[in-house]
Amino acid sequence: MRPSKRPPHQLRDVRITRHYTCHAEGSVLVEFGNTKVLCTASVEETIPGFLKGKGEGWVTAEYGMLPRSTHTRMAREAAKGKQSGRTQEIQRLIGRSLRAVVDLKALGERQITIDCDVLQADGGTRTAAITGACVALHDALQGLVANGKLATSPLKDWVAAVSVGIHGGQAVLDLDYAEDSDCDTDMNVVMTGQGGFVEVQGTAEGTPFSRTELDALLALAADGIAQLCRLQQQSVSA
Amino acid sequence: MRPSKRPPHQLRDVRITRHYTCHAEGSVLVEFGNTKVLCTASVEETIPGFLKGKGEGWVTAEYGMLPRSTHTRMAREAAKGKQSGRTQEIQRLIGRSLRAVVDLKALGERQITIDCDVLQADGGTRTAAITGACVALHDALQGLVANGKLATSPLKDWVAAVSVGIHGGQAVLDLDYAEDSDCDTDMNVVMTGQGGFVEVQGTAEGTPFSRTELDALLALAADGIAQLCRLQQQSVSA
Amino acid sequence: MRPSKRPPHQLRDVRITRHYTCHAEGSVLVEFGNTKVLCTASVEETIPGFLKGKGEGWVTAEYGMLPRSTHTRMAREAAKGKQSGRTQEIQRLIGRSLRAVVDLKALGERQITIDCDVLQADGGTRTAAITGACVALHDALQGLVANGKLATSPLKDWVAAVSVGIHGGQAVLDLDYAEDSDCDTDMNVVMTGQGGFVEVQGTAEGTPFSRTELDALLALAADGIAQLCRLQQQSVSA
Amino acid sequence: MRPSKRPPHQLRDVRITRHYTCHAEGSVLVEFGNTKVLCTASVEETIPGFLKGKGEGWVTAEYGMLPRSTHTRMAREAAKGKQSGRTQEIQRLIGRSLRAVVDLKALGERQITIDCDVLQADGGTRTAAITGACVALHDALQGLVANGKLATSPLKDWVAAVSVGIHGGQAVLDLDYAEDSDCDTDMNVVMTGQGGFVEVQGTAEGTPFSRTELDALLALAADGIAQLCRLQQQSVSA
Amino acid sequence: MRPSKRPPHQLRDVRITRHYTCHAEGSVLVEFGNTKVLCTASVEETIPGFLKGKGEGWVTAEYGMLPRSTHTRMAREAAKGKQSGRTQEIQRLIGRSLRAVVDLKALGERQITIDCDVLQADGGTRTAAITGACVALHDALQGLVANGKLATSPLKDWVAAVSVGIHGGQAVLDLDYAEDSDCDTDMNVVMTGQGGFVEVQGTAEGTPFSRTELDALLALAADGIAQLCRLQQQSVSA
Amino acid sequence: MRPSKRPPHQLRDVRITRHYTCHAEGSVLVEFGNTKVLCTASVEETIPGFLKGKGEGWVTAEYGMLPRSTHTRMAREAAKGKQSGRTQEIQRLIGRSLRAVVDLKALGERQITIDCDVLQADGGTRTAAITGACVALHDALQGLVANGKLATSPLKDWVAAVSVGIHGGQAVLDLDYAEDSDCDTDMNVVMTGQGGFVEVQGTAEGTPFSRTELDALLALAADGIAQLCRLQQQSVSA
Repeated sequence: MRPSKRPPHQLRDVRITRHYTCHAEGSVLVEFGNTKVLCTASVEETIPGFLKGKGEGWVTAEYGMLPRSTHTRMAREAAKGKQSGRTQEIQRLIGRSLRAVVDLKALGERQITIDCDVLQADGGTRTAAITGACVALHDALQGLVANGKLATSPLKDWVAAVSVGIHGGQAVLDLDYAEDSDCDTDMNVVMTGQGGFVEVQGTAEGTPFSRTELDALLALAADGIAQLCRLQQQSVSA
Repeated sequence: MRPSKRPPHQLRDVRITRHYTCHAEGSVLVEFGNTKVLCTASVEETIPGFLKGKGEGWVTAEYGMLPRSTHTRMAREAAKGKQSGRTQEIQRLIGRSLRAVVDLKALGERQITIDCDVLQADGGTRTAAITGACVALHDALQGLVANGKLATSPLKDWVAAVSVGIHGGQAVLDLDYAEDSDCDTDMNVVMTGQGGFVEVQGTAEGTPFSRTELDALLALAADGIAQLCRLQQQSVSA
Repeated sequence: MRPSKRPPHQLRDVRITRHYTCHAEGSVLVEFGNTKVLCTASVEETIPGFLKGKGEGWVTAEYGMLPRSTHTRMAREAAKGKQSGRTQEIQRLIGRSLRAVVDLKALGERQITIDCDVLQADGGTRTAAITGACVALHDALQGLVANGKLATSPLKDWVAAVSVGIHGGQAVLDLDYAEDSDCDTDMNVVMTGQGGFVEVQGTAEGTPFSRTELDALLALAADGIAQLCRLQQQSVSA
Repeated sequence: MRPSKRPPHQLRDVRITRHYTCHAEGSVLVEFGNTKVLCTASVEETIPGFLKGKGEGWVTAEYGMLPRSTHTRMAREAAKGKQSGRTQEIQRLIGRSLRAVVDLKALGERQITIDCDVLQADGGTRTAAITGACVALHDALQGLVANGKLATSPLKDWVAAVSVGIHGGQAVLDLDYAEDSDCDTDMNVVMTGQGGFVEVQGTAEGTPFSRTELDALLALAADGIAQLCRLQQQSVSA
Repeated sequence: MRPSKRPPHQLRDVRITRHYTCHAEGSVLVEFGNTKVLCTASVEETIPGFLKGKGEGWVTAEYGMLPRSTHTRMAREAAKGKQSGRTQEIQRLIGRSLRAVVDLKALGERQITIDCDVLQADGGTRTAAITGACVALHDALQGLVANGKLATSPLKDWVAAVSVGIHGGQAVLDLDYAEDSDCDTDMNVVMTGQGGFVEVQGTAEGTPFSRTELDALLALAADGIAQLCRLQQQSVSA
Repeated sequence: MRPSKRPPHQLRDVRITRHYTCHAEGSVLVEFGNTKVLCTASVEETIPGFLKGKGEGWVTAEYGMLPRSTHTRMAREAAKGKQSGRTQEIQRLIGRSLRAVVDLKALGERQITIDCDVLQADGGTRTAAITGACVALHDALQGLVANGKLATSPLKDWVAAVSVGIHGGQAVLDLDYAEDSDCDTDMNVVMTGQGGFVEVQGTAEGTPFSRTELDALLALAADGIAQLCRLQQQSVSA
């Protein structure tokens, strides 16, 4: 039995709250159980230097954890004067994942920055962040359509993410902190609404994992992400 | 008429929500109108180096704004690699204000760190932060009593803060962003529940201010802070 | 009796020496007793980015302490790679204080940077710095008049500062280090020659202070600053 | 036809030169075609703080590129004052991969740091680094056996890595820079000599990839890594 | 007898290998005995800000040591976030030495950066670096001639460097690490092929040195550098 | 004729003022003409880590320039967050020079830090700093004798420094800024009172210099330093 008592293939309760704060062009609080991440999308009519003159836009992400989002307090990265390697890995992953579903040519010469700030952490913050960020991005892009800057939204599909792992010898979906701390293999999978893979990142924490285990994990993830994309769709249809 | 339509002596709606997140020993969301600050108190059984062996505890604070808590996105301090002068001023102010109402000897050799993170900003973030932080601190100290580490809470009084300013020639209480951007004199006042002054920080933005104006501002602030301390008391009595 | 044996309302010996170094457009050594601060004003024909195209000038300040200006050696901020929160607070205060008496429109698109470097510290370095910096600024502005870049000086008034505090239950003026270390309430006041308030920053070090004490401190400060502004005037009339 | 003219399943010429420099306990130059990485293993009889008193050892890695290892010069990270997110990702990956094949309990309270410095880059620097680093680690551990500090080597298996990708619609093994710049999906796979997975990191650069493509890539990688582990074994048997 | 058994006036085996890596416009591995430094020259068609519009070029250098180029591992400067004072001194020295033999007007508005990275250290890394860097610079400048960007090479002469010191009371040439660690006076001399001095940097490690000793050291250095310049010439004539 | 009208072998007016500030164990204002450097010596009863347990002391130096000590304002190093390569070179030079005349064993396990801060610059700040620093160090060491911590001063000799250069084809002593900016070769020489060389650092700014020129410069320097050491001796005998 997994610590959360959930069956192996069950997601935590996922909640997507739009318009959570008032200034950002997209603002979503995403909850995967006790994991809560605030995702805001900010539109800026500038473009990073390496894209100047190419007629394309850019989507990027930043990630942070509030110091006491975690069980014991973590030092504030702004106070330490640098972002950890983990933070940088995660924000690069979020950015790549989102760019996979945006037509950057159609976006035009503007940048959208997605800030994903973890208010409360209980495992799976990066996958929750990707899932919520896509909705914030959706809203920011709809805003550009609404105010006449774009004819149609350059969002090509939904993108969502979930973690899977081998816990107690069994493949399980959407690990919380207790499960994540005690699993042998940990994998984060990012997929589109149409079922294409965007990112697959699997790590053996102890014993290397077999091809059979990998296949089981990928199947669980595909199923979970299909559910998440339906929730994304519902959140903007409501 | 002030932009917010409030009479000069009226606070914004103030809301204090305890237990907002689940890991911290104290966790308070404080709202002054649209300004929303998450204040968490973390107890650590260590002490900064300069207090080693003195048999005293310490209370300190850190402050941050989420990048899109503001009208336009601000660069993330963790990404820039340093905290601004403004951030440092504010976190020093919060720490001093809280220490004014704690018996550090009675706290014993432990440190409480209050993290004040602005989720949404509409003026007065530092005064809201002090007001909410004191409740988070209260809860963390009660926790130490509850688990037997302290016999009684070393919190000697409430401490709260409010901004006042001269807007359109008139002294007004609790400025929102629109008022703050358009005022001549801006003052932050920190007082205890018993009406003692802890901090007074007034700045002439344009024309210097007179003693008469200063007196009017201090009177407004004293009245506002008395209301805030009653709200703090109510929040923990509920 | 206060440690310095001075009556409560007495300033330390204040000396203002102009042209202390030879390269700067204004260069003043200001001494408040044993506190010695070198204030230089540098005129640059550029403007910070946020003022580009507004037709205004800017006055800003930087502050530093020589490592052994103090009783025991402090680490050099350049070697540590960052300025402390205290340093940033002080240099922001000096800049704001000076801008309060300069007509920035009349200054035109140029910047004056005031460097305040403490050669010897004995309490009140920030208030001495403001007092000396205003004379250095005066001289730099007169230089712009003398070389034909400005028709008249954009300095509207003198600005000076002094510390006051409650020491041994009594309000005293212009605290030296021994008094400052042993006082209950510490307040820095910045006022113009015409008696307007520019900044009031009071802090309870231990017990909160009462309105009566605050009034006594403000009265002492107003009197002290009036004397300082007369000394500023005399220093440039000699 | 892929740019390198190699058939899809063919590795570049791989060369492993041991004892490349003279001071390190293990020193290996690994070449995957034109990609050349110097991997040194340094044994230190200390342990990071988080392992103090646990009776375990640690293996960690650092990664760097010489500024002109690349087609155009990159800024030196030491001069910029920080390591990029990419650098940190790679060195974390190398460290995790190596720890997967070391019995850290058996290593005892000492740390081995593997420095992987790219002398010349032509794609696949991280996979070459892992492959060479494992041989350097092997040599350092044998050294501990040779000088009597360990009874047997705590290296449990070989670990090696290779990149695979979809280029021109076809799954290909071991991408060089030209192929990597022009492929749709890029995957780095780390496996042990016994064929267990340690890391799988796949990224869709443009179109998301399908499960079928993923399977083809994993098969190619498994075959390539089996060859690399044989080369590792041969290099130390010679 | 010196530790290396060499007679006092004998250089170590010096080897200059051109085209050591493939991307840089000049790439030289220089070996002074066991000291091995990779020197690459990178041509960029930009110019530092302070030279804008002057019609001149610039030659600059950067220096680094691989963490395990030394007997015991040194911390990586990129990880520490700053270059040491020693590193900065050396790279400034290399840059000045090279500029002494280049006609910067004739170079035109472009910059050549020489990266000197120590792969293996055994004393004299800075002098080896200067000696190898000049050959890398030569090759890069010849490349500019070959591709028609310059009519003739702006290299006016060779420049090379060697260390000399007083070891066991005797002046000796080209110190290795063992000799350098145990000598009283250490001097680095940089001279041109025509015998002019570019830099002389002598330091008494213990007892001050006399004029007689200084003269002996300078004579040894002049002789050694004449040999090094012949080797530079031969390396490009082969 | 040199710009300063001085004959080639003439020092500027050199003034050494002891007890310039009141807190440091040694405090000297040294003036070489318009160059003014404040040198303070601070005694600390600790030792850097690398000397722990060796029974020796340490003497080190830090150097800084006030932002407007120069003709045009330089950015403050504390604000930039790092010390320049030039600053680091100079402070390392000052430290080495002073250690050459101190018996570190006799000093015992304590550290003396000499801070050299340039109040006004007109060429030769590093040589003035060394000359003044030695007197500050003398005073701090005498203080240790006076308060009984040492039986006799561990200062073995005076050490002083001067710059020499080739200006207008002629070797000249003690260059001011105008001369330094317009000279072909610039050399800083550090010698003891007994005439031993501690440091010789010569740089060809344009054309390489000859052995004959080097000899002329060294002779001038030796004569100048002999005068400076007499002035040091007089300053402490007065």
